[in-house]
Amino acid sequence: MELTPTFDAPYTAVIFSSLRTEGDRGYDAVSARMETLAAQQPGYLGVESARDEATGFGITVSYWRDHASAAAWKQVTEHERAQANGKRLWYSDYVVRIATVDRDYRNDRPNA
Amino acid sequence: MELTPTFDAPYTAVIFSSLRTEGDRGYDAVSARMETLAAQQPGYLGVESARDEATGFGITVSYWRDHASAAAWKQVTEHERAQANGKRLWYSDYVVRIATVDRDYRNDRPNA
Repeated sequence: MELTPTFDAPYTAVIFSSLRTEGDRGYDAVSARMETLAAQQPGYLGVESARDEATGFGITVSYWRDHASAAAWKQVTEHERAQANGKRLWYSDYVVRIATVDRDYRNDRPNA
Repeated sequence: MELTPTFDAPYTAVIFSSLRTEGDRGYDAVSARMETLAAQQPGYLGVESARDEATGFGITVSYWRDHASAAAWKQVTEHERAQANGKRLWYSDYVVRIATVDRDYRNDRPNA
């Protein structure tokens, strides 16, 4: 996983915080496929993901040009199927937050 | 780490994405202290954090009532010292994004 760079604000961040269930249950393959598919959508800027192996707690943040492109990705059919499996198999709990990034900086250098 | 619950929008999310250097270098103790100290600040709502042990890539998101309370926490003296050590010792690279959460939901139940 690489850092997603800064962009001209405003743009959209979808913060997905989750607790995984035990075992893979097909998660890794679908997760990789969703990253590939997301990157092909209009308005996609990047995605970052990290998970604590010990606790199963993870955060994925996807970045989009605007809320409309993030909403369109949520409704892509193959992604909808993955979300259904997420609820049924992979996550014991999750929170989704749709946010507008107002400013950003890298290593204390403001993104002017 | 527990999921931070939903809140009445709008509120503020500070998304901190980072790559750790090798070794602890005092990080774990300061990190725990910063979580305790942050929780005592006005406007604090919660914090979530996850890191991939294998790659050193991590995401911490802190949640605040508004941008002003997030900015005030950035300037707390002890936190400023920790940020300086972060740049010098703990992180090889990082990006900070200040965002406004427009809406959220938990397990597909919208936070009305």
